[in-house]
Amino acid sequence: MSLNIPELIRRKRNGEEIPAEELEQLIDGFVDGEVENYQISAFLMAVYHQGMSPDEAAALTRSMINSGDSYDLKSIMRPKVDKHSTGGVGDKLSLILAPLVATTGAVVPMVSGRGLGHTGGTLDKLDSIPGYRWDIDEATFEKQLYKVGCAIIGQTANFVPADKKLYAMRDVTATVESIPLICASILSKKVAAGTDYLVMDVKCGSGAFMETVDSARELAKGLVTIGTALRKRVSALITQMNQPCGIEIGNANEVRESIDLLKGKGPADAREITVRLCMEMLRLAGIEENAAAARQRLEKALDDGTALAKFTEWIVAQGGDPRVIDDYSLLKVSDKRHELKFGRSGYIQKMNVRQIGVAANTLGAGRMKVTDTVDTTVGITCPWKVGDKVTASDFITLIHNDRGLDEAAKMVQNAIVIGDEPVERLPLIIEEFRA
Amino acid sequence: MSLNIPELIRRKRNGEEIPAEELEQLIDGFVDGEVENYQISAFLMAVYHQGMSPDEAAALTRSMINSGDSYDLKSIMRPKVDKHSTGGVGDKLSLILAPLVATTGAVVPMVSGRGLGHTGGTLDKLDSIPGYRWDIDEATFEKQLYKVGCAIIGQTANFVPADKKLYAMRDVTATVESIPLICASILSKKVAAGTDYLVMDVKCGSGAFMETVDSARELAKGLVTIGTALRKRVSALITQMNQPCGIEIGNANEVRESIDLLKGKGPADAREITVRLCMEMLRLAGIEENAAAARQRLEKALDDGTALAKFTEWIVAQGGDPRVIDDYSLLKVSDKRHELKFGRSGYIQKMNVRQIGVAANTLGAGRMKVTDTVDTTVGITCPWKVGDKVTASDFITLIHNDRGLDEAAKMVQNAIVIGDEPVERLPLIIEEFRA
Repeated sequence: MSLNIPELIRRKRNGEEIPAEELEQLIDGFVDGEVENYQISAFLMAVYHQGMSPDEAAALTRSMINSGDSYDLKSIMRPKVDKHSTGGVGDKLSLILAPLVATTGAVVPMVSGRGLGHTGGTLDKLDSIPGYRWDIDEATFEKQLYKVGCAIIGQTANFVPADKKLYAMRDVTATVESIPLICASILSKKVAAGTDYLVMDVKCGSGAFMETVDSARELAKGLVTIGTALRKRVSALITQMNQPCGIEIGNANEVRESIDLLKGKGPADAREITVRLCMEMLRLAGIEENAAAARQRLEKALDDGTALAKFTEWIVAQGGDPRVIDDYSLLKVSDKRHELKFGRSGYIQKMNVRQIGVAANTLGAGRMKVTDTVDTTVGITCPWKVGDKVTASDFITLIHNDRGLDEAAKMVQNAIVIGDEPVERLPLIIEEFRA
Repeated sequence: MSLNIPELIRRKRNGEEIPAEELEQLIDGFVDGEVENYQISAFLMAVYHQGMSPDEAAALTRSMINSGDSYDLKSIMRPKVDKHSTGGVGDKLSLILAPLVATTGAVVPMVSGRGLGHTGGTLDKLDSIPGYRWDIDEATFEKQLYKVGCAIIGQTANFVPADKKLYAMRDVTATVESIPLICASILSKKVAAGTDYLVMDVKCGSGAFMETVDSARELAKGLVTIGTALRKRVSALITQMNQPCGIEIGNANEVRESIDLLKGKGPADAREITVRLCMEMLRLAGIEENAAAARQRLEKALDDGTALAKFTEWIVAQGGDPRVIDDYSLLKVSDKRHELKFGRSGYIQKMNVRQIGVAANTLGAGRMKVTDTVDTTVGITCPWKVGDKVTASDFITLIHNDRGLDEAAKMVQNAIVIGDEPVERLPLIIEEFRA
């Protein structure tokens, strides 16, 4: 390698812009083991402090995409459009959104992940559908996208390997919280999955990675700017995460709620955020630019069974048992319930959503460490939002298998603040960013 | 190790102060191989961007000192005082200063290094004295300091090993140019050598590490502040390096010039800077606080042979042949000379001193890489300073052994700018910093 790595780090350290070809050599060298870990970590810390221009971050992203397998969906002559969420509690929107958008003729090529920390993961939720396979090969993925219009699969071992290696390094060197690095990580995987249009659901609040609107705004702007520099059409919606999304938190119970939503029922907040994300997807992809028309089309597909039919088609294509749609017992939600009564009346002032997510994990619904095992049958049912008036006998339900019940109950109890003063409801969509 | 390293890096990254005991665990872990290189490099880059408080840098320095051998000179009941130079071209001052200060009853325990890059190294110069040994053991070092009052030795393998490991890491991760890290590196070695009082010669100009007065001032302040936090009395003089120090650049020829100076002769600038540094050493050590009295005492020792006698005593103690003092031919300066005429008359406007240093290395006088071998017999004789009036037939002499002559000549030619306008002479001492 002809690249002078210390000199490249020095320039980044001094705030200079690194040319695309040098970033590519750096990332290639890192993946090949020619660039030392201690040099990458110093580079990442320099990026943390100096940032990256949109072009630079786009070049980094491209180098990461080129480090391994990616999906070329060029043979499918319909708009490829995807959504990515930065992670929240009760966030099952992909399960509804993918088939819903597929009903409009667009193609939704989703590559999803597992949950870690207090947030859930789409693959964990899908595990509760008997027979569902996320590990399908490229040809089958492409065929399904062509035929059905949507697919949700997992990452192959060689899918954007640079991201895996970089993330492992960032995790142990305190360089995770860098906007260009976060954006490159997200965008590399989304673009490698073959999408042309991308809507970012940037969750904001106590249950999100970005707790303040300022930080969410910074990430949203970064994603849109860097995505645009990658020549993709990208928008971002900052959405509410100071209360869980929908009612169910867990895996099987979240799938059940998703099917409810696909039947035109289910909680209003989850439906509204889904519709808004889909409206933006249709706008970006040029399928329906008029907001009112897009909303009408999407709401109709939810209400008249079109979206549910697409969901069935998709689940069947990936080996899942479609009978779950009519027989929720096949999802195997645990029937052990613990009702956690509020014990006082008043208005819900505040929810520590992260704590509620951790409580669900404590019951077994998620992982705090990668080695933890997930129990898809447990979770939390929380039919309350900030501003709701509650009585002393109202409750939150812990769906459990005995594991971690007392601890989880204590966490949920502490996570909800009830007071006498009425409180305003929280906006579901906080801000929108378009290129 | 109970220390959470990513968390420690994160706090430093965010600008927090790291407690002394954690820095000690970090450095111990790094030397033992328990802390990963990629974590240290991320930490160093965070320090580069966030700096360190004087207490923090002092704690880092102490951890580095504790990582290996250090000299405990407590049994010698006289003031231990040392000088450190940040490195320049023609800088032979240690050779004169150590015996000169020893004549006043103080003890000068110098641990020196080799030259690298465009600057020379004291051990390389001493190599030109037949028989001189720098690798003497601790007991002999201490005995010599007690008897003679000065010694210049090299580092043992286990002398501040943390500094060697840290420096190797900084060198390849662009984290060399950090004031607290530079100060910790310098001070750890000086304090480990057993000194109580320390005068820093911060060279400033085109031939120095610090090219601008601002950067030299920042380093000088750092050294004094961190040295004080280490409970040592430290001062710093910012001295001129926009022209070489003295006339000779090389090794054997610099020793010859040093002996001239110890005989009360030699170039005025080198003598003046030496005396000023020694005055500050005497003041710090409480030997002579009155500047005029200190100057008189030092100049007398140079002029009446006292300093030369101490030099002889020292050289003999370390196995060197004292006949070099009267017979310069024993220093084996090459007799191949190339006179580089200016070719035009005028005033010396500017000197690129770094280029002159690199030219001397090209002749063989120093190393650009650690693996280069040094030829102590070659060098450059440059009896000119900025502001001097020269004629076309005036010249600079390249003392060579054929190697690199053409290239060196071209470099020196390009390094000197002659113009018609008279130019002011440069101040020798630019600024003084005291605690």
